[in-house]
Amino acid sequence: MSIRIGILGYGNLGRGVECAVRQNPDMELSAVFTRRDPSGLSVLTKTAAVESVKNIADWKERIDVLILCGGSATDLPIQTPEMASMFNVVDSFDTHARIPEHFAKVDEAAEKSGKIGIISVGWDPGMFSLNRLYANAVLPDGCDYTFWGKGVSQGHSDAIRRVEGVKDGKQYTIPIESALEAVRSGKNPELSARQKHLRECFVVLEDGADPDKVEQEIKNMPNYFADYDTTVHFISEEELKANHSGIPHGGFVIRSGKTGWNLENNHIIEYSLKLDSNPEFTSGVIVAYARAAYRMHKEGQCGCKTVLDVAPSYLSAKSGEELRKSLL
Amino acid sequence: MSIRIGILGYGNLGRGVECAVRQNPDMELSAVFTRRDPSGLSVLTKTAAVESVKNIADWKERIDVLILCGGSATDLPIQTPEMASMFNVVDSFDTHARIPEHFAKVDEAAEKSGKIGIISVGWDPGMFSLNRLYANAVLPDGCDYTFWGKGVSQGHSDAIRRVEGVKDGKQYTIPIESALEAVRSGKNPELSARQKHLRECFVVLEDGADPDKVEQEIKNMPNYFADYDTTVHFISEEELKANHSGIPHGGFVIRSGKTGWNLENNHIIEYSLKLDSNPEFTSGVIVAYARAAYRMHKEGQCGCKTVLDVAPSYLSAKSGEELRKSLL
Repeated sequence: MSIRIGILGYGNLGRGVECAVRQNPDMELSAVFTRRDPSGLSVLTKTAAVESVKNIADWKERIDVLILCGGSATDLPIQTPEMASMFNVVDSFDTHARIPEHFAKVDEAAEKSGKIGIISVGWDPGMFSLNRLYANAVLPDGCDYTFWGKGVSQGHSDAIRRVEGVKDGKQYTIPIESALEAVRSGKNPELSARQKHLRECFVVLEDGADPDKVEQEIKNMPNYFADYDTTVHFISEEELKANHSGIPHGGFVIRSGKTGWNLENNHIIEYSLKLDSNPEFTSGVIVAYARAAYRMHKEGQCGCKTVLDVAPSYLSAKSGEELRKSLL
Repeated sequence: MSIRIGILGYGNLGRGVECAVRQNPDMELSAVFTRRDPSGLSVLTKTAAVESVKNIADWKERIDVLILCGGSATDLPIQTPEMASMFNVVDSFDTHARIPEHFAKVDEAAEKSGKIGIISVGWDPGMFSLNRLYANAVLPDGCDYTFWGKGVSQGHSDAIRRVEGVKDGKQYTIPIESALEAVRSGKNPELSARQKHLRECFVVLEDGADPDKVEQEIKNMPNYFADYDTTVHFISEEELKANHSGIPHGGFVIRSGKTGWNLENNHIIEYSLKLDSNPEFTSGVIVAYARAAYRMHKEGQCGCKTVLDVAPSYLSAKSGEELRKSLL
């Protein structure tokens, strides 16, 4: 029997999850839940129901894992605990500073309902967190580095679009190669924000807007751009659409650490991602953890978990025996 | 209270484990067990006992986890199941093809004794296996690649030393950069052994040996060298000692996979290691899994496990709360 998946929220991430479910033969997409009028929403999976979120309680017995595809700012802090009272859930809550609080709420709901809630699943938090943990456990004496990009930062692109005179825009976060090389050399450099990443902006101006004024406003924007070397390119709307409509991303997690009786030997552990589609890759991670949630619940476990709490073998459709034979 | 560690076997790996225990303040080295005369063995940790393996049963209540530092060919297939009948154990059994059989024996012994046995811990098998599993779970449609090096292959160095006329030698396995780049580009190339790795040999000749004959014998050795482009350098004993006495290693695990409704997007996951000391890094991994074995046993778990079965949080000395706050 397939693992029956529900999706709540059908934006980029929801569509990514739909595609990822299709790549996993042990799963099926049962329903997509929306806050909009369901009659206006058409999904790719012809066998899946499209339902109003108002009716979601009716699906308690027909869905094994509900995947929450809303945003971390306002949706997930409410939705994940609420849904964990009825379903096994997986979310991609990514506001690092608020994870402990979110964990506590989801844990309370899931302990009460006897369900599993896996939060903060994706690549950062997610695969990057796993790599930080493994590398820290293996090399206790060392330094951690995380670089992001090259990729589109949604938050920084939104910030550009709020500048007066900007019609549309995209921002790429780019790791600085010389900083990466310094880290890989084992020198354990201390790096400022400016030394680690460049910010490159592609901007479409409103008719009559002053490019110099827009450029200065972007470059001096506190938190977002002022602490970085930022370049601004003005391009046409057509060019933005043709060359910058993808959502690529990626990054690097590096730990440089020492071993030996006198810490005389150096080691570099590096994990990197180069992603054509940020939401589709995130969805691949989420769907693997949905499998884990299903299995852990079947075993009688409940409560809130993160990627750090889930044994890797739960993520694979293969048996332990197959995994030992083929992957170990 | 510290986790009390025992070491069985005091070669490169045993010494590496001794150093790694020192880097983990929640552990202490209680005893080193040897098959040799213990009075002839001096260890670096002044507080640790040195004991004959004959007396190991006397330590059942004084050691929490016994780390087995013998070889995979003849030591571990006997030792790990035997010791799992008395202790929580961790080994680095690395004969990939015989893992299922080894697992079954250790599982039987550990289920019976109520102990935990974690086998095949290190970097390959070990950290590389984990990365293969995670990457396969996240990107079900894709290709796996493993490259080793640049590093010293013990098996190939031993093979060189068995050639008539060779006094001493070291072999480096070197991944071919153009093959790595082809994989990273997402082209999913099919690569032969020769296309993936070079083999570079540094050889000290016996007095009067014929270099041409030795070189041909090495280059044409089946399994070890015949399928590779191999270079042989003849050097002096002093030079070998000065420049080639380290045991560096490393490698790359790459998965290239596709997502999207029509598999239109490509993704690259890459994990790499650059290690000054192969045995010391392996020891770092083993000691982290010794912590996991200790905790899993405390929770009442038993039987044989591999890295694929161990939730990441067990590896860290930090609490779940600390991990969520600092690493997630």
